[in-house]
Amino acid sequence: MSGTNHAENDDWTGQVPTVVLVEPQMGENIGAAARAMWNFGLDRMRIVNPRDGWPNPKAQAMSSGAGRVMDAVTVVDTTAEAVADLNYVFATTARSRDLAKEIMTPERAMEHARALIGQGQKVGIMFGPERAGLENEDIAHANALISVPVNPAFASLNLAQCVLLLAYEWRRQTGEVPAQVMELAGTDFATGLEVQKLGERMEEALDARGFFWPEDKAESMVLTLRNMMTRLDLTQADVRVFHGIMKALEKPRAK
Amino acid sequence: MSGTNHAENDDWTGQVPTVVLVEPQMGENIGAAARAMWNFGLDRMRIVNPRDGWPNPKAQAMSSGAGRVMDAVTVVDTTAEAVADLNYVFATTARSRDLAKEIMTPERAMEHARALIGQGQKVGIMFGPERAGLENEDIAHANALISVPVNPAFASLNLAQCVLLLAYEWRRQTGEVPAQVMELAGTDFATGLEVQKLGERMEEALDARGFFWPEDKAESMVLTLRNMMTRLDLTQADVRVFHGIMKALEKPRAK
Repeated sequence: MSGTNHAENDDWTGQVPTVVLVEPQMGENIGAAARAMWNFGLDRMRIVNPRDGWPNPKAQAMSSGAGRVMDAVTVVDTTAEAVADLNYVFATTARSRDLAKEIMTPERAMEHARALIGQGQKVGIMFGPERAGLENEDIAHANALISVPVNPAFASLNLAQCVLLLAYEWRRQTGEVPAQVMELAGTDFATGLEVQKLGERMEEALDARGFFWPEDKAESMVLTLRNMMTRLDLTQADVRVFHGIMKALEKPRAK
Repeated sequence: MSGTNHAENDDWTGQVPTVVLVEPQMGENIGAAARAMWNFGLDRMRIVNPRDGWPNPKAQAMSSGAGRVMDAVTVVDTTAEAVADLNYVFATTARSRDLAKEIMTPERAMEHARALIGQGQKVGIMFGPERAGLENEDIAHANALISVPVNPAFASLNLAQCVLLLAYEWRRQTGEVPAQVMELAGTDFATGLEVQKLGERMEEALDARGFFWPEDKAESMVLTLRNMMTRLDLTQADVRVFHGIMKALEKPRAK
């Protein structure tokens, strides 16, 4: 995947969840998490007690293109400080815990986040250190857990991948992207009349060559052909191509 | 995120889409793509004309844990060969193209893939080379395009991230993971009677201390309290904790 529109898009600056990285170890992972966030429009990151201090040159280098996220990073000493002003906090974890807590899929969690933010609430998503994940002391600050439904035989998401999936779900829950559209590549869909005329030309050409046979099947064969032609969702360019094909095929052959 | 259950899970070996990497450049990216696939249960990879040949030691090293995917890799010379036996092929692309083609979100695409596979069809998902993405010649082999709805101001998904999101969506569309469950951590939800008795104890203690005042508001205050106690979805452990709190608070204080 590539291709970036460098124009600013202010729609992305609305209320979004805050990403809280608790005691991240490698600067590269902080930078990669920032990129994953910004890919899907998240731009608020807080870091609790980063192992290698702050600022971190490796984080800066890895975050290339997501400078907006890095510029706004807040660093605090404790998880309690990081979530102090947040109304609702999710904690991501792959492991079952000793604490009674709601566990949500990323989808359900970001749906809930959207609802909360729509009510003016401040929402955070906590991610633990690379190796160990969040401690129970951190999880006690969370209102609910998020568990990504990974393959039970291979659950090896890294920090940035986990951030990516949550950011993607946030975008999916809030974006107004149509699930399916036709890329028309500069043409339009053919009109009913254009498709009908093409179909008639094909029928005539086929009929002249004895295609519709036996005669008692002819009617249903024509119907099948017409049905196919409309089902194809032809563009005007497609119709021209088909006419070209018909023209080529209709040339009288040497007998 | 961490924690892997090494037990085999045969539910993951059913019919799944085939991932087709077209002319991938770096072995590391092939390995990372294999890991991303296996995180969400995809285990069939085909590679078209890998730049550095095959086998690729860097791909092997990076694929750690996803050996099952690597062992089954098929390498072919052309995209046409890679898709020859597939009934339906998606092509991932971030750019608009000159070809008229359906464009789907990852969600819609994997929903469609599930339907097709349910009908016994073989489905593939094509990914282009790291830098340039798929060429129009490759896309011509696809039935539909997939476009990930990234931030228009920052669309920088790498190959393995793109594979991860599609694999995640496949799992999301096919997995039977409840959207939200309560982690009970060894206890059970409290019964209605347990909650009711706790509420009565609290009401009595509060009433003895003149909490329900003025008198004409008392009834609605009790109702509010009772409603809150049921809304909390208390566990049996929670109820014990509350009784402990009440016991501590009920101790006669020195006046």
